[in-house]
Amino acid sequence: MGRQARRAVLLSITLEENSHQTLQAQIHGQIRRAILEGRLACDTKLPSSRLLAAELGCARGTVLAAFDQLQAEGYLVARSTAGMSVARDLPDDMLAPAPTKSAPHTPMLPPMLPERTRTLLRHARAPQTAPSGNAPIAFPLGQPDRQAFPFPLWAKLLEQDWRRPAWPIAGTPPPSGHPALQQAIATHLRTARGFDCAQESIVITAGVEQSVSLFARIALEAGEQAWVEEPGYPGIRAALAAAGIRAVPVAIDEAGFAPETARATAPDARLAVVAPSHHYPLGTVLSLQRRLALLSWAQRRQGWIIEDDFDGEYRYAGRPLAPLRALDRAGRVAYLGSFSKLLFPALRLSYIVLPPALVPVAQKILPQVFTPAPLMGQGALARFIAEGHLASHLRRTRLLYAARQKSLMEAAGRHLAGLMHIPPDSGGMHVVACPTPALAPTLDDNAATAVALKAGVQVAPLSECYAGPRKQHGLLLGYAGTPHHEIDPAMRRLALALEAFMPRHTGAGDPMGRA
Amino acid sequence: MGRQARRAVLLSITLEENSHQTLQAQIHGQIRRAILEGRLACDTKLPSSRLLAAELGCARGTVLAAFDQLQAEGYLVARSTAGMSVARDLPDDMLAPAPTKSAPHTPMLPPMLPERTRTLLRHARAPQTAPSGNAPIAFPLGQPDRQAFPFPLWAKLLEQDWRRPAWPIAGTPPPSGHPALQQAIATHLRTARGFDCAQESIVITAGVEQSVSLFARIALEAGEQAWVEEPGYPGIRAALAAAGIRAVPVAIDEAGFAPETARATAPDARLAVVAPSHHYPLGTVLSLQRRLALLSWAQRRQGWIIEDDFDGEYRYAGRPLAPLRALDRAGRVAYLGSFSKLLFPALRLSYIVLPPALVPVAQKILPQVFTPAPLMGQGALARFIAEGHLASHLRRTRLLYAARQKSLMEAAGRHLAGLMHIPPDSGGMHVVACPTPALAPTLDDNAATAVALKAGVQVAPLSECYAGPRKQHGLLLGYAGTPHHEIDPAMRRLALALEAFMPRHTGAGDPMGRA
Repeated sequence: MGRQARRAVLLSITLEENSHQTLQAQIHGQIRRAILEGRLACDTKLPSSRLLAAELGCARGTVLAAFDQLQAEGYLVARSTAGMSVARDLPDDMLAPAPTKSAPHTPMLPPMLPERTRTLLRHARAPQTAPSGNAPIAFPLGQPDRQAFPFPLWAKLLEQDWRRPAWPIAGTPPPSGHPALQQAIATHLRTARGFDCAQESIVITAGVEQSVSLFARIALEAGEQAWVEEPGYPGIRAALAAAGIRAVPVAIDEAGFAPETARATAPDARLAVVAPSHHYPLGTVLSLQRRLALLSWAQRRQGWIIEDDFDGEYRYAGRPLAPLRALDRAGRVAYLGSFSKLLFPALRLSYIVLPPALVPVAQKILPQVFTPAPLMGQGALARFIAEGHLASHLRRTRLLYAARQKSLMEAAGRHLAGLMHIPPDSGGMHVVACPTPALAPTLDDNAATAVALKAGVQVAPLSECYAGPRKQHGLLLGYAGTPHHEIDPAMRRLALALEAFMPRHTGAGDPMGRA
Repeated sequence: MGRQARRAVLLSITLEENSHQTLQAQIHGQIRRAILEGRLACDTKLPSSRLLAAELGCARGTVLAAFDQLQAEGYLVARSTAGMSVARDLPDDMLAPAPTKSAPHTPMLPPMLPERTRTLLRHARAPQTAPSGNAPIAFPLGQPDRQAFPFPLWAKLLEQDWRRPAWPIAGTPPPSGHPALQQAIATHLRTARGFDCAQESIVITAGVEQSVSLFARIALEAGEQAWVEEPGYPGIRAALAAAGIRAVPVAIDEAGFAPETARATAPDARLAVVAPSHHYPLGTVLSLQRRLALLSWAQRRQGWIIEDDFDGEYRYAGRPLAPLRALDRAGRVAYLGSFSKLLFPALRLSYIVLPPALVPVAQKILPQVFTPAPLMGQGALARFIAEGHLASHLRRTRLLYAARQKSLMEAAGRHLAGLMHIPPDSGGMHVVACPTPALAPTLDDNAATAVALKAGVQVAPLSECYAGPRKQHGLLLGYAGTPHHEIDPAMRRLALALEAFMPRHTGAGDPMGRA
């Protein structure tokens, strides 16, 4: 027994009765590790299965099965007379002593990072969350109210939708999205935005960026130019670039995007990406004349318009203006909408309404150019819309957000005077605070954003919305996701943080005494 | 009254009491349309609100509100004494007669399609579904059994997960995925695949393509080379290309991917993408020697290995071999898994286990290089795994699919003799049928796939899995999604379809009479 006992000790096999692994798996795994770590050298003869089984107090069949597995994997070879031995043809360098057991996955050398990854690391931004972690904080951008959405209802709709799903949905869903959701959106748009579109013209996407990129890939040649609003949503420029399109920033004026300026800037462009209902981030509403002029350009030029109606649902004064798509009689407008900001961000469902002439084209090439949007919530969202819950959710949140905007404007009046002013905005989920002439020369909005975050206030820099060199500085303040009682204290903290950016008056006022 | 009555007729305003639109919206919309379609010319004076209200039988306030809206939008202007007129400064070309009302969205000219879109259209493939539409059909690839998955349970887990979601999940979910799912996968891998990994090293993705592309972006410079298996999964080559990596096909032999062949083919490559557990599409299992040689290469070269364990869970003979990741002591292996084929395709959830040294890098740059995976089902999937449902689902389907593979092999023996032979496969969800020497010279697998589909049998061409010029022809037959009773009749239909590809014997056998 002495010899076999010593071998078993050498192998250090310890069987645990309460392990999640079977006895066979434990024996197999421990012998394999011993071989790989060099504790069992090549050609070493193993004890017989009978003896090992006796030593370990398990059935011989268990040991035999482990041996068979190790033999099938190439760790062991069977010697005709002498039982099993460790295989000879394992590469030597794999048999070196293992690193310390406590860190089996620590790489021996730091990985060589490619230059493009190092560049990304240099540009990586600290996550825009408060030091306090998950605690609610004013004024996050693009965040709806976290209490407003009826999650228990949503959970019930999900349950209903997945209890007995049709196999075409659960198996190979169509790339353009859940047909019930396409239908519900078409109906919603007819009622809420005043235009008709065929269910087939709607493609469900994972976000506005995917919508823009998809459209540009279908409608434009790589290398063509597109007008984008300056300032504007940075994600749109990135999405165009991903589709090989050159985004040409066109500075907007008080009335929003100016088609004449655009034509003067880049006469060859064949796509305009605009947010006529509510400019991002400034909130301008595009006038009817400019809407019609833009449509007229698209028709004459055989160009295209992407109408980004990202928060057209939130308008607190007057009725929403008719979208470009409702005025478009030449079929040149692709309309974009999104549910992620209206309902909750993790939903990640948006859509594009394609111009009718591109619908058959898209149906054919979609599988080649498009990763379908997440399907899991699409059926529930279809029910949410069709059963009227979206309409009532919008009614409720419209009142809620209008009240929050009002609170925010009042708090700004109390605390930001002399530092920033906030132009009125007829809709949306955020406002833009612009520095007063006193603060403007010294305000860097990226620095101010960082200082505000330290003070527990989450804002976003306006300058990030500019692509060109002439950037305005200012702060974007989201109010939709900020409860009423947090608005005033947060505004006070923001004002304190901004004081640091005011120029120091080293002298005593105006040296000429003219003040 | 005559004049106003005539005007009202001219305007053709018809109010419907049962419309989903308010009376005000109906008046507004119909006047706007009349202006846009040129039926109300510039400068036309409108009837007074009082007279129009009387004419239409509604409150005067309703008409006034519609007028206000039209004025705000720029369609109407107020004349001090004479009420409302149609605005003068609308572009003339928008006022042309509208196209026929029945097709308000038909474009006037066919759109100019870019060359890249026309190229895609030329390469667009007819959808690979049967003429019969949604009816089940043998032998779809990558489809699990549609009865096997417990959807009522899934629906309940979804409901539980979304009833009261934490806001960090519903609001701004982490880009790497739901923490509960990362945790559940780490535990699953420990038990089922025999290796430990930190929860933070797992990134949830929308599919193997996204996993490959993400890893290549982080670990390699644009322009670097990667070895891929020839034949292999075409999606992997496309994903590498999307990350700027040149995929170099390395022909596999009977033992699978050969590291020496790879080094001879492209010595500079710094990434190997392999499916060692079960090669796609041929089913080869990579030997231990080659696994160790590959790991040894990666360690010496400071290179990387992507281990695609796409269906390692389905092995019907013996126990699964230890994955590369479990043997990797230098931290050079990224491990890929997927749930879409195991559970149901619409789930679209996969994952990558990053090498430990790349985890902190990925955490910093993920927001810049990655569109997060669909979140809606991640919490439910975490529960599905943690509560043991995945393990029992795998146990059940493993038995089911093993039985189906056996039925398929028997049916092939009965019907395909002389046409195709199917090498045995120890696992997976499909087999590969290879032409006999008699059929090989005349078989085009793309043509055969089309002919089979007409006969109601869905197969896939083997040649599509090749990137290089030396393509083998054959047919991939998925059996996991094909019920037992459909296997034999489908195989008979497939055999009949393949007869058409047999060379015609114009003479009477061998002219030399040696047969």
